[in-house]
Amino acid sequence: MNTYTVKAFGTDAPESSLKQMSIERRDVTEKDVEINILYCGICHSDLHTARNEWHGTTYPAVPGHEIVGRVTKVGNGVTKFKTGDYVAVGCMVDSCRECSHCKAGLEQYCENGNTGTYNGHDKYLNHQTFGGYSERIIVDQDFVLRVPENLDLAATAPLLCAGITTWSPLKHWKVGAGQKVGIAGIGGLGHMGVKLAKAMGAEVVVITTSPSKTADAQRLGANEVIVSTDEEQMKANANTLHFIVDCISAQHDVNAYLSLLKTDGTLALVGAPEHPLPIAPFSLIPARKNFAGSTIGGIAETQEMLDFCGKHNITADIELIAIQDVNQAYERLLKGDVKYRFVIDMATLKG
Amino acid sequence: MNTYTVKAFGTDAPESSLKQMSIERRDVTEKDVEINILYCGICHSDLHTARNEWHGTTYPAVPGHEIVGRVTKVGNGVTKFKTGDYVAVGCMVDSCRECSHCKAGLEQYCENGNTGTYNGHDKYLNHQTFGGYSERIIVDQDFVLRVPENLDLAATAPLLCAGITTWSPLKHWKVGAGQKVGIAGIGGLGHMGVKLAKAMGAEVVVITTSPSKTADAQRLGANEVIVSTDEEQMKANANTLHFIVDCISAQHDVNAYLSLLKTDGTLALVGAPEHPLPIAPFSLIPARKNFAGSTIGGIAETQEMLDFCGKHNITADIELIAIQDVNQAYERLLKGDVKYRFVIDMATLKG
Repeated sequence: MNTYTVKAFGTDAPESSLKQMSIERRDVTEKDVEINILYCGICHSDLHTARNEWHGTTYPAVPGHEIVGRVTKVGNGVTKFKTGDYVAVGCMVDSCRECSHCKAGLEQYCENGNTGTYNGHDKYLNHQTFGGYSERIIVDQDFVLRVPENLDLAATAPLLCAGITTWSPLKHWKVGAGQKVGIAGIGGLGHMGVKLAKAMGAEVVVITTSPSKTADAQRLGANEVIVSTDEEQMKANANTLHFIVDCISAQHDVNAYLSLLKTDGTLALVGAPEHPLPIAPFSLIPARKNFAGSTIGGIAETQEMLDFCGKHNITADIELIAIQDVNQAYERLLKGDVKYRFVIDMATLKG
Repeated sequence: MNTYTVKAFGTDAPESSLKQMSIERRDVTEKDVEINILYCGICHSDLHTARNEWHGTTYPAVPGHEIVGRVTKVGNGVTKFKTGDYVAVGCMVDSCRECSHCKAGLEQYCENGNTGTYNGHDKYLNHQTFGGYSERIIVDQDFVLRVPENLDLAATAPLLCAGITTWSPLKHWKVGAGQKVGIAGIGGLGHMGVKLAKAMGAEVVVITTSPSKTADAQRLGANEVIVSTDEEQMKANANTLHFIVDCISAQHDVNAYLSLLKTDGTLALVGAPEHPLPIAPFSLIPARKNFAGSTIGGIAETQEMLDFCGKHNITADIELIAIQDVNQAYERLLKGDVKYRFVIDMATLKG
């Protein structure tokens, strides 16, 4: 297989900073799309992977799965895209496509494991996949998304992970008008959850530990804000929410959040705290409540989310940075010092 | 309000044994049914309440909410039952009947709190309710169930709590043919879960810590048995079950049981371990799994369950005891030494 070299930004070891490096990309095969990457969002998973915090990183590691770019070349069998199209790539670049989940459009739950955009297994080149902190990426057309024309390209990038991660549970648990929906934790994921749930017609209640986030939550679209550290507020709002998307990645007492749910309500965890979360049986049993988890979304569902965002003019609130500032951005990310997503201007890698 | 005295078996204090005592019952009012109690099952909740292990017991306490008997008198406005009918009473004798849950037949989730058959608030006499370890009970017709004619009366009693507690989640989560359903823990609840899930058409998999229970699980109707302490067996059965009813009341690692679920599967907890259960986020997130709780069932649903049991000739496996042996039965219950439910022959109280 023919390959060529592109510039990338990655790391050779868990304790090292990210730096410029060269990686190998395949030439487009029949169904492939070559994308010139314009913007790439920074997701907390990028940091976990770069630092091997999930214990499965193969080095060198090139993170990035919130990719927006422009098509520069297509294979002979490509029907969905043409040179010049604005496109996006999210957390997956392939899956088995044969299992029941893939056939149902649930590639994120592929029974044989989907191929992560980075730190997955690249079946073409037989090494780890490299993500969006790079000049170009080659992706099978079936895992490429179309970007609505009216959206700001840089602010669209975070939709590919933060957007779909909150969209998928909101859709799966049928959130809509007439429902009161909680978004717990206002960061990269949570701020998208607020915007999406609001546009879906729900009454949105932000649950946050920080009274200081109240004004910003309202600006994002929240109808109400509950400060979770205020026991009176929590009690006053017990049994009022139909559904909660729990975007908190730090350890937290899920029982307190479950108390806010109505009978038959579900709290879907999309943040991933490191340690187990203790759940009291009586947080669930007396009102048939559900504690669930959800991860990203399928390809068709991701396109549906992008189209919805185009229609409702929804993008992320971002801070655009140069790739040379990515290590500093990681440090700020750890402190929660970003409103609400860093996006890398990939022109800074090429310059 | 006119009242009269009946013999009962109960306790005056958490540390005391149960003994014979007298309690007050109201005369039937317009919509009431007076029931001569023939059999009463012993549920673990009886013991928790008698010993104040849930910290809310009002003494004297007369337990018993798996009641089967015969109608001896009805109020002028009673239309559903007549003297001589074989009837049953479960865990509730009233609810607000006005909230959205009551109107939806979900009296067990009454927003204003249903009235427990024992240790609830008796609005007629303004003291605690007294349960089925007694000669007679007076219940509003709307909370009285009809016993199918073909069923053994003594073995029907446990259907009123153990039966409905497993039936309700099996129905709510739509268990049926083509599905593989796990029943975790084979005691009073679990053995009913096996019989009911099997009759509903599901393939039933018993999950037990005890290899010695394999033969009995198969006798009850299990298609397969997984020994949960055998890591190889647990691994071999990962991602194979559509649904699990978790009947284990001791502390246990729910993550191990969640690993057996397919994508989108639910584990419904109906046993109630005392302490919180630690749930690893990655037990739920990667395959959108659900950890839920469920308690008993509504009145219409309980009648539906009884009718189903009549049609399929399903009752509990019981050990019939005299009421004078109830304290000894409690000790055996604590050791799990019963196959699978004690039922009191209430003639022994009257004799």
